[in-house]
Amino acid sequence: MSQFWSPLVHRLSPYVPGEQPRVEGLIKLNTNELPFGPSPAVAGAIEAAAREGLQLYPDPQSGALCEALAAYHGMPRDHVFVGNGSDEVLAHAFAGLLKHDGQLLFPDITYSFYPTYCRLFGIAYETVPLDGAMQVNIEDYRRATGAIVGAVILPNPNAPTGVGLGLDAVERLLAMHAHAPVVIDEAYVDFGAQSALPLIARYPNLLIVRTLSKSRGLAGLRVGYALGQPHLIEALVRVKDSFNSYPLDRLAQAGALASLGDEDYFQQGCAAIIENRAQLVTGLERLGFAVLPSQANFVFARHSARGGAELAQALRAKKILVRHFNAPRIDPFLRITVGNGDQVSVLLQALEDILSC
Amino acid sequence: MSQFWSPLVHRLSPYVPGEQPRVEGLIKLNTNELPFGPSPAVAGAIEAAAREGLQLYPDPQSGALCEALAAYHGMPRDHVFVGNGSDEVLAHAFAGLLKHDGQLLFPDITYSFYPTYCRLFGIAYETVPLDGAMQVNIEDYRRATGAIVGAVILPNPNAPTGVGLGLDAVERLLAMHAHAPVVIDEAYVDFGAQSALPLIARYPNLLIVRTLSKSRGLAGLRVGYALGQPHLIEALVRVKDSFNSYPLDRLAQAGALASLGDEDYFQQGCAAIIENRAQLVTGLERLGFAVLPSQANFVFARHSARGGAELAQALRAKKILVRHFNAPRIDPFLRITVGNGDQVSVLLQALEDILSC
Repeated sequence: MSQFWSPLVHRLSPYVPGEQPRVEGLIKLNTNELPFGPSPAVAGAIEAAAREGLQLYPDPQSGALCEALAAYHGMPRDHVFVGNGSDEVLAHAFAGLLKHDGQLLFPDITYSFYPTYCRLFGIAYETVPLDGAMQVNIEDYRRATGAIVGAVILPNPNAPTGVGLGLDAVERLLAMHAHAPVVIDEAYVDFGAQSALPLIARYPNLLIVRTLSKSRGLAGLRVGYALGQPHLIEALVRVKDSFNSYPLDRLAQAGALASLGDEDYFQQGCAAIIENRAQLVTGLERLGFAVLPSQANFVFARHSARGGAELAQALRAKKILVRHFNAPRIDPFLRITVGNGDQVSVLLQALEDILSC
Repeated sequence: MSQFWSPLVHRLSPYVPGEQPRVEGLIKLNTNELPFGPSPAVAGAIEAAAREGLQLYPDPQSGALCEALAAYHGMPRDHVFVGNGSDEVLAHAFAGLLKHDGQLLFPDITYSFYPTYCRLFGIAYETVPLDGAMQVNIEDYRRATGAIVGAVILPNPNAPTGVGLGLDAVERLLAMHAHAPVVIDEAYVDFGAQSALPLIARYPNLLIVRTLSKSRGLAGLRVGYALGQPHLIEALVRVKDSFNSYPLDRLAQAGALASLGDEDYFQQGCAAIIENRAQLVTGLERLGFAVLPSQANFVFARHSARGGAELAQALRAKKILVRHFNAPRIDPFLRITVGNGDQVSVLLQALEDILSC
């Protein structure tokens, strides 16, 4: 508290990211990173960019990267916006598209940054409970005639549950709130979920947000992007150019471009995670966990007899980090990132040891 | 315009950065970059960071970098905040420290991003005219008893004039508005101006903002920082953690750290610019320009007979870019970045040719 703070600062409830500890030998399954690095082409591109031109400002529009993303997704250049991680893209979307007189709707259990953005930007919101199976039911987003919905944001697949929505369900949501912006946060879509990309041409209210942090193994590079019709992209550009003209440094632009150019590596990585996920789920179920059906690079699992906090702490004692949320409804669960084969085995063995005590 | 935009978006007036053209052979003296690259240690550090761990999130607090900056400036760690370029640091300062019931004061001629931030965050402001010599006169920031000043922001040296304020003047400002946050934007301080650093311990209302883009030749890396007492830093952290937890990627953190470790290179670079600036000023005055006394890596100069727009356009035809602002009071001026010796010579020769026509 300080007399010098803007009144805004007093009402904030800052987001708490998963731990990034610097401990040797830790198995880190708490922040949904890939267990392997990005395409080898990335380091080469970064090294070239580091050797020349660092004294010059980067392209403020990240033009080459936007063009590459547009080509990759088969869209015009003016359908693409990039930012310093999808968190920054989401922040601009909250400020520029999701603040209206009507309330913003999102699930009660979802990415915990959403209510934080709402407090930062003064956005009124209403959370919509997941159903009994911890799934988003689109019909729960319908409101009585006359009730004003300002906007909607949903991750697909949802976090921290990992549960995905079909394209038909997303389309019903877009049609249901045709006059409101609808943001689909596809941070984890590449691990088997259905993208809403095919709907962009027909739904002027649809903005998709993506990240290179997860499926492209570039969490350390901070690159996210949005896809949507140009009038939505323009709102993001206007906010960005009122906040920070140069959000992506030269190295991030170069590295992201190189990653996009290596499709084989990307596909193989996603396939490996999907395979490891199946092993992890089988192992967890064998140990007495109920695991929500995941389309992400993590699973959300609760044990039939032991609490989430207790298990997370016992794993930590064995130098394995998973994420536990001390929050209503999800307190019994662990969110476990899908690691490589060895990590999956070590985790399952550790849980077996803990559960046998 | 779009029905999907937040009402905010309609009132924005986005900042327009200097051009970043991709033209071969251009002499680029329009965005105040160094004419040479950063310390060679920077590329090495980035290459090491690119080869390992890019799939992992960066340290969200940039702890090692903050500690190095604290040690460099002889302050405790809790006096330091870092962001994605000083533009992001400024944005968080506007949101978290400069928005109050009273008006924000800044010069009428200054960094043109300030009014843009004000519109983004809904901050009421009043501009204070530079005096007849285009200098900040601190007495002009005094207000009648009862008039509420919310906060003050000043660049030192000012941009685009390059004119610096002495430490005594800055201290008078801090004492004059002891109950209001005062941000001193020291983006260009390393080229011969006096820093307000010695005042931090005694003035709880002082926040200093710095960048590695100018004097450290790292515009392409996007690293800025703030220094001040912990209660001010905490406001910035709270805003940052409500906006984007991971503003600096792994490469930027590594490169910035390496730059801080090479003091000799840094000092030599600043000295070279100061020397080249003297040559540029002498040459411009010989050609009939009046040049404001600059403590920055640029000069602000007006010709006795020819207009700023006309000269900027004539230089552009010779593939030399300088910055011209089509705005009241400064329309006759050119803002010219101090380049290397060759660039200074080529520019002066080009101006001589243009003026002889």
